[in-house]
Amino acid sequence: METILQGAGGEVVIGPGQPTAIIGERINPTGRKAFSAELQAGDLSRIARDAQAQADAGAAVLDVNVGAAGVDEVALLPQAIQIVQDTADLPVCIDSANPEALAAGLRVIRGRALVNSVNGEMAKMKAVFPVVAEYGAAVIALCMDDSGIPATPEARLAVAENILKEAAAYGIAPEAVLLDPLVLAVGADHTAGQVTAEAARLIRANFGCNMTAGASNASHGMPERQVLNTVFLALLIQAGVNAPICNPLTNGLAVRAADLMLGLDEWGMRYIQTYRAALKAASE
Amino acid sequence: METILQGAGGEVVIGPGQPTAIIGERINPTGRKAFSAELQAGDLSRIARDAQAQADAGAAVLDVNVGAAGVDEVALLPQAIQIVQDTADLPVCIDSANPEALAAGLRVIRGRALVNSVNGEMAKMKAVFPVVAEYGAAVIALCMDDSGIPATPEARLAVAENILKEAAAYGIAPEAVLLDPLVLAVGADHTAGQVTAEAARLIRANFGCNMTAGASNASHGMPERQVLNTVFLALLIQAGVNAPICNPLTNGLAVRAADLMLGLDEWGMRYIQTYRAALKAASE
Repeated sequence: METILQGAGGEVVIGPGQPTAIIGERINPTGRKAFSAELQAGDLSRIARDAQAQADAGAAVLDVNVGAAGVDEVALLPQAIQIVQDTADLPVCIDSANPEALAAGLRVIRGRALVNSVNGEMAKMKAVFPVVAEYGAAVIALCMDDSGIPATPEARLAVAENILKEAAAYGIAPEAVLLDPLVLAVGADHTAGQVTAEAARLIRANFGCNMTAGASNASHGMPERQVLNTVFLALLIQAGVNAPICNPLTNGLAVRAADLMLGLDEWGMRYIQTYRAALKAASE
Repeated sequence: METILQGAGGEVVIGPGQPTAIIGERINPTGRKAFSAELQAGDLSRIARDAQAQADAGAAVLDVNVGAAGVDEVALLPQAIQIVQDTADLPVCIDSANPEALAAGLRVIRGRALVNSVNGEMAKMKAVFPVVAEYGAAVIALCMDDSGIPATPEARLAVAENILKEAAAYGIAPEAVLLDPLVLAVGADHTAGQVTAEAARLIRANFGCNMTAGASNASHGMPERQVLNTVFLALLIQAGVNAPICNPLTNGLAVRAADLMLGLDEWGMRYIQTYRAALKAASE
């Protein structure tokens, strides 16, 4: 099953056997005080720089989130998306908890975007799926519902099944749904990584869907997070997560290393390109 | 299936659900000019330091190899093993291409050692299995035979089956055979990593055997080898390799990270201990 996103410069194919598509997560004010303050002042100047840096580091899709306190996302999100599209040729992932902002963002998209996100809560699906269907977009769907985040892989699979069924009622095909098996911190529960990877394996085996995941959530509160993030990206990609959301500047080489070790990078060309791009960025 | 090795200080259990057992590879003159020269001069002073450093870094078993040009291994290997046993309480992995040296080493072992190695070549099995059987040791068996290294996972599985069958004829049980699915360089063949991991999966699924592998062989000739080694250790451990041979000073944290992400490290205690030991070693 292939999920095809379109940017101004061409398409990105997400599917088994394809190179892993990194969704660059940097354009997001969460945990970035300076960026939050800029957004609150209506200053979008950082966005083009972040877009370019992530594109140079090998991102395949760029997430755009302007959700800081006091920001009018309905007004600002389309502007931010325009800047990203003017800077990089990559498809956009429109990231907001506000369905109106998602719709406003989708109106300015050139190509086919990814919407971030829906989950298995009935109210959420009713709010987001009509917008996704109207614009023919793809959508990230988190494997949680009105009962919260299921503890077991099998229960996350059941939520995924329900999401796909509900999506179908809106005319949204499984290819358009990037399931997220949900990453929790291993510091709080040492089985959390294994549960997520197993959920991913079950989803791939049962529905053939493409998947995303925020791998670095697993390492919160632990030392040497980069080692844990590298290991977990590899395990998630092996389990079928083929569009992880992460920072390509810090995790891009790990993703390319996983692809190479999984036989998805002929001659290691992408790995070596990413290594060279990082060298070049470091020397500038 | 559990493989139990014994050192002076207690046993190490290698098996599914157990923490991954690192076989420390440092006591080996290959690629170490100073150590080679010392061995040629009969100077074994480096061995105790290497043994202690690897034990501190979390090795579960210590490989001992003194095979440098001009060295009489039959005389020197037992001396080296004695030093290792006097320094660390860990089981020993006796590493030599010379069956006489293996036997000489086994004679001084306190506990149960691992022998490194046999493979599927008839002459090799005839030379090594009697020695392993005589001392009740365990043995590393490389999945290659008189036809060389098989190209496919299925063919490596067939070699493994033949090795286990031949071992049984000497009274050596499958628990005593640590199969090595063989790691080749991805720089020469970009499918090499995937072939090894798949061979490991097939061996675990078909024979339930415990496995070793030299993960870092995969990254030869590539830049940023540490990223590739970290990723590949994670993928191999996920595939069932539970006693990788590596340098615990550089790869120990990656192994513990893989265990944690695979749910094998309750509270992340071993990961954090390894992190702290590395901090302490760096400050000394």
